[in-house]
Amino acid sequence: VNKKIDNFKNLVGENWVITDSDTLKSYLEDETPQGSKVKPVSDIIVVKPGESEELSKVMREANRRNIPVFVRGGGTGLVGGCVPTKKGIVVSMDRFKDIKVNDESLTATVGAGVTLEELKASVNKAKLSFPPHPGDETAQIGGLVSCDAGGASVVKTGTMRNFVMGLEIVLPTGETIRTGGRLVRDNVNAGKLMNFFIGTEGIFGIITEITLKLQKSQKARGIMIAPFDKKHNSLEVVPKILKSELTPEGIEYAERKTIELVSEVGREISPFEGGEAFLLLMFSEPNEEALYSGLEKLRKTLKKFGAKEPYFAETESEREKIMGIRSEFYPSLKPEMYKDLDICVPVDKTRDFISKLDEISKEYETYLHPYGHVGDGNLHVHIMQSENWSEEKYSSLEEDIYRTGTELGGTISGEHGVGEVKKKFLYLNLDKKSRILLKSLKKTLDPKNILNPGKVID
Amino acid sequence: VNKKIDNFKNLVGENWVITDSDTLKSYLEDETPQGSKVKPVSDIIVVKPGESEELSKVMREANRRNIPVFVRGGGTGLVGGCVPTKKGIVVSMDRFKDIKVNDESLTATVGAGVTLEELKASVNKAKLSFPPHPGDETAQIGGLVSCDAGGASVVKTGTMRNFVMGLEIVLPTGETIRTGGRLVRDNVNAGKLMNFFIGTEGIFGIITEITLKLQKSQKARGIMIAPFDKKHNSLEVVPKILKSELTPEGIEYAERKTIELVSEVGREISPFEGGEAFLLLMFSEPNEEALYSGLEKLRKTLKKFGAKEPYFAETESEREKIMGIRSEFYPSLKPEMYKDLDICVPVDKTRDFISKLDEISKEYETYLHPYGHVGDGNLHVHIMQSENWSEEKYSSLEEDIYRTGTELGGTISGEHGVGEVKKKFLYLNLDKKSRILLKSLKKTLDPKNILNPGKVID
Repeated sequence: VNKKIDNFKNLVGENWVITDSDTLKSYLEDETPQGSKVKPVSDIIVVKPGESEELSKVMREANRRNIPVFVRGGGTGLVGGCVPTKKGIVVSMDRFKDIKVNDESLTATVGAGVTLEELKASVNKAKLSFPPHPGDETAQIGGLVSCDAGGASVVKTGTMRNFVMGLEIVLPTGETIRTGGRLVRDNVNAGKLMNFFIGTEGIFGIITEITLKLQKSQKARGIMIAPFDKKHNSLEVVPKILKSELTPEGIEYAERKTIELVSEVGREISPFEGGEAFLLLMFSEPNEEALYSGLEKLRKTLKKFGAKEPYFAETESEREKIMGIRSEFYPSLKPEMYKDLDICVPVDKTRDFISKLDEISKEYETYLHPYGHVGDGNLHVHIMQSENWSEEKYSSLEEDIYRTGTELGGTISGEHGVGEVKKKFLYLNLDKKSRILLKSLKKTLDPKNILNPGKVID
Repeated sequence: VNKKIDNFKNLVGENWVITDSDTLKSYLEDETPQGSKVKPVSDIIVVKPGESEELSKVMREANRRNIPVFVRGGGTGLVGGCVPTKKGIVVSMDRFKDIKVNDESLTATVGAGVTLEELKASVNKAKLSFPPHPGDETAQIGGLVSCDAGGASVVKTGTMRNFVMGLEIVLPTGETIRTGGRLVRDNVNAGKLMNFFIGTEGIFGIITEITLKLQKSQKARGIMIAPFDKKHNSLEVVPKILKSELTPEGIEYAERKTIELVSEVGREISPFEGGEAFLLLMFSEPNEEALYSGLEKLRKTLKKFGAKEPYFAETESEREKIMGIRSEFYPSLKPEMYKDLDICVPVDKTRDFISKLDEISKEYETYLHPYGHVGDGNLHVHIMQSENWSEEKYSSLEEDIYRTGTELGGTISGEHGVGEVKKKFLYLNLDKKSRILLKSLKKTLDPKNILNPGKVID
């Protein structure tokens, strides 16, 4: 072991190998809720390369000596993707911190360890915008790209993949490739290889640098809350909203009971009032004319589908208040949450999905707090702790929910990914040939299976 | 040979194997300009499966007997990608013609052989829109997805990749996989495998069915032509336009001499008048308020950068006239065109690129008619026939242009792809490790190298 530690110290410098067991603790977990938590091994060291050349050497060494490598970004994942489960090393990307914003080509080139918060700050400073906002701002860009993260503002501009123009990648065997650049279109380099590394959760290579596409900043923002007495009305109107003149950047769904829980933990919840279900519509337009001319028509559409008088937040402080309530959903549920699922169904199937969930809830005598990105069909479903439930009962409920989503043409993961937690349900979405194909691609790139072993398809 | 033909007739039916040499001719070429044309073999037969199960059998048979398979969509490619260069079979996708538009989930599920024209017609009928318009409307969707096609309206919504939600693919060894569905987000199925088959020009598998994302139709359209006395002004303003309130769906660039050529072949060219260079801005907005409020600010930006009074086409007939002129650029050049390049540089480097092209033009005493998708940095450069030029001189010019683009951080292909024509220049964009990696991925999927052999990286 000491020999191993010394080798890595030689490669990245003495200060950048962590072996002290107290400090190590913070590198063992991610944010997976308790019922799905992955048990880490304790026998690991953390290696923190400062640049891709060092990382390349680390991977060559690991590959030579068959040492499992678990890559860690911000550790905000919800499926145990970065949790080390074999004796080996954790590679932390914390030191990949460069940010270069180019306001002429509307691009940002950033190190994998740059956090979403840091990126947003630099982009705002350049008076540009980066539309995706996949949740926790301490997430790192390398992880967000590896997992093709989504979030609440995907309706107009899509997930992370749509914003990636170039990547630098260190392969499991230690070679470094650069693919793409500051190019909107690249039918050679980015076009042939880059997307293979996006959304595959780091099993094919480690992303070290990312060039992202930026956009002009949007000047007119607004948030609308539409309460509905009937859940199904709020779900049926979603495809109509997508066809309305004004496309929201996000459409979120929540039910009364979830709002009540947020209130119970001490949060002021107005203006989420007077409905069984709510749609939260977020707008982002280049100017107020565009926003307001579309808004009136949208109000009419909402009313036609049974919405009560919607509340429109216009000022920055009103918007912040509402986004604050929205961001309290998860932490309010968290203490009693056992599992957090992220099924995505076609946008015209959310009504059927919520109806089936209601049946399942009744059957299991629980409430699942379904909420989230209904504009994309991506709903978070939460299995809460229940007294006297066996592990089998939780698992059976989980599988029933996945099955229901899948039967409606959905996927078991809209955004959290597979990691370690969902491997056992992969069969619901990936046919056998696809699984075999992914495994043989993995074998081609990582013949000794040292990079993130045990994750996704292993 | 007769044995071979009989085997395929058994698989797809007697009428769907073409052996008659006159009919075969139309399956041997694509639209590659004369100076780059790829010489086809004549010793082929054409097989036309009607569904993926038949195609699957065809591939198993080909794989068993080591028969090269060249897949053909609409045959509108410009790099010889579908031209059969080895004794074998051409698989034509013409019979994959299903179209299902779902106006609730805003998706279309289509067979690979559906043409862009057919898709547009069905989508329009459903009062929805499919924003990409990659050139020739006889192109087939399978080919457009395989090549991640672009076209003139990419600025706002991106290339084909951004619109693909699901694929059915027949692998080189004959297995069929389905990946994705009518899902905006899918971090399992589509997320892990689908993008591997997009933009890789059919070397990893044959796309048989595609689910595409649609959008609401846009009600307010407009086209603006801005003439400039100085080319570099027109190029410098492009990043400013991208930051303006109103984002065009496309920004096209053309020079006076190209417009004059269009005029010489008998086309009325007004309102392209009175400038050395022109920007053609295409707009597509949900309503007129959004269009007109942004337009005034854009006019000011254009003027600040030296644009003369821009012409705005408002009526459908004016717009059609201008798009008609734009679509005459290529056919006007075609008779005298020797090679057609499609370099893409970062959007802030188009001025440098055009300046360098001017120097190269002077050196070679020719004019290169650079025009195209300047809003994405993707410019088409045309090597015209010149008296007494040797093949070496054409090649040297071609390589000089590619090198110039590459030195500015560009790619040798923004949209045409690699096919057979650009293989020899791949080294400019793809580092050695990437080429090796692509080859080993190819080997993993197609161990006998029977699918589109000789293309892209072979």
